[in-house]
Amino acid sequence: MNIGLDMMGGDFAPLEAAKGAVEYLSSAAGDIHLTLIGDEKKINEILLTHPLPAGKYNIVHASEVIEMNEHPTKALKEKQHSSIAIGFHLLATGKTDAFISAGNTGAMMVGSLFSIKTIEGVLRPTIGAYMPREDGTLGLLVDVGLNADCKPENLNQFAVLGSLYARHILNYQNPKVGLINLGEEEGKGNLLTQATYPLLKENKQLNFIGNIEGRDILMPKADVLVCNGFTGNVVLKLAESVYDITKRRNINDEHFNRFNFEQYGGVPVLGVAKPVIIGHGISHAMAFKNMIRIAHRMLQTDLLTKMKDSFIDQA
Amino acid sequence: MNIGLDMMGGDFAPLEAAKGAVEYLSSAAGDIHLTLIGDEKKINEILLTHPLPAGKYNIVHASEVIEMNEHPTKALKEKQHSSIAIGFHLLATGKTDAFISAGNTGAMMVGSLFSIKTIEGVLRPTIGAYMPREDGTLGLLVDVGLNADCKPENLNQFAVLGSLYARHILNYQNPKVGLINLGEEEGKGNLLTQATYPLLKENKQLNFIGNIEGRDILMPKADVLVCNGFTGNVVLKLAESVYDITKRRNINDEHFNRFNFEQYGGVPVLGVAKPVIIGHGISHAMAFKNMIRIAHRMLQTDLLTKMKDSFIDQA
Repeated sequence: MNIGLDMMGGDFAPLEAAKGAVEYLSSAAGDIHLTLIGDEKKINEILLTHPLPAGKYNIVHASEVIEMNEHPTKALKEKQHSSIAIGFHLLATGKTDAFISAGNTGAMMVGSLFSIKTIEGVLRPTIGAYMPREDGTLGLLVDVGLNADCKPENLNQFAVLGSLYARHILNYQNPKVGLINLGEEEGKGNLLTQATYPLLKENKQLNFIGNIEGRDILMPKADVLVCNGFTGNVVLKLAESVYDITKRRNINDEHFNRFNFEQYGGVPVLGVAKPVIIGHGISHAMAFKNMIRIAHRMLQTDLLTKMKDSFIDQA
Repeated sequence: MNIGLDMMGGDFAPLEAAKGAVEYLSSAAGDIHLTLIGDEKKINEILLTHPLPAGKYNIVHASEVIEMNEHPTKALKEKQHSSIAIGFHLLATGKTDAFISAGNTGAMMVGSLFSIKTIEGVLRPTIGAYMPREDGTLGLLVDVGLNADCKPENLNQFAVLGSLYARHILNYQNPKVGLINLGEEEGKGNLLTQATYPLLKENKQLNFIGNIEGRDILMPKADVLVCNGFTGNVVLKLAESVYDITKRRNINDEHFNRFNFEQYGGVPVLGVAKPVIIGHGISHAMAFKNMIRIAHRMLQTDLLTKMKDSFIDQA
């Protein structure tokens, strides 16, 4: 299992990416190999002080970097020797099995959609985010901004993708799916949720528990929280800001500390045909370690085949 | 200035309503008279232990109560002697100048729309909620659920109504209006916010500062936060749940204590032709006191005339 890691992506690359790789490889069980993509000279320099186990990695040189503020499509086209462009090329040609970057989010999205493509039957991929609950578990909120406007069938597919992720990566036996809405009763909602409810209810692949409200998002009521990307994005950023407020006010609480979303690194683009994980720009070692762990687990559980099978069943 | 107060609405009525009335009248300056609507016998009993200043109130008997779980339209039609039905009748016929209830929210909405009607030119009224900011001030989030699906012109009108409220009730000289969106740059957003942005930008009645993100909702970046009712409702309930979490975790922080939305009582239905305030069902004395204060201030500042003028100007 060969995981491609963009060493140039993120505000603290390549140092924090290297540290995350060291941390993960020192504890990981099972077959894993890392392909480190980026400026070979810089990577080798850092590996002098942060050595990786020999035979567990290789370096693929990338002479360019797509900066955080560059236009995604333009940059990907013009910088073919960038770490992101090379990372997607390696993944698309089967030289790696997964790709992780904390670099330019837009370029990562464009690469995912055009180099890797979506799973057959998936109308739109989705990006989710973890929501910490008081019992120490995590919920998965999908979508958090990739799809500003959604159709009912989009939300239905996000629910299926999110459920498979929650089952195999978050280890929920039969993840409960909740539809974020402005009331609990069936029939409540905007046009989108009113039309989505019956689709989720009839979908035999889902353990649908009905509508959930804003107050249930941080509770262990549903494990997969389905939402249009506009609302999901506002919810995620609001939750992130709650963490910032607690820190500014010197509140040190075990639960609110879990609102530090940076530690999770990122969750994969769900619905594309290969594992692609897009990290926060501010990712530190723990975030990189977590992203490698998620990619490794996606390969170990063969999650992508399960997702593909799931959409074949529906057709 | 005669303010109608539903003494039967809310989980702790009539006691807490009476306590709130006592608290407000003992401190209020200026012309004010309360019309207490409800079971005359029960009200008189409570006034024995919670006396109101003579000449400052009268009681209008209502023999029925619309319960919290009743169907709004049906209940309003069938219970013509309920405190809510009588409250709207008094307001519509000019016997009172404002109406406050912490009773059945749906019945209050139906009454507002059908007994009082909207301001000429207003397409849809809106309900807002306060958002506490770290500097001790409040922002106004509109809409928080009355309008699950919105058109761009609806959001534009919510911005105007919210700005007038923020100026005259919250005392912001020139309230900053922000459009809640999933990115800051102009052009970002879903179809609704993309189409709304130019309307807000061109609206000379507004001090529009552009898009704001989820992370800005609890910051003093914009004073009026404009949003579709679906997302606004999710945001409000999520913020309410943050307060619940802090209480369960024994966090006693001055700022997070202000997330106790119950204390604010409720904000008016903006866009209807007379002041109507719908309170939380769980309203206690402080909430009732605050609602009377808001209604009083709306009358003192002649806010409704300002709103009407504002929409005449637009026509």
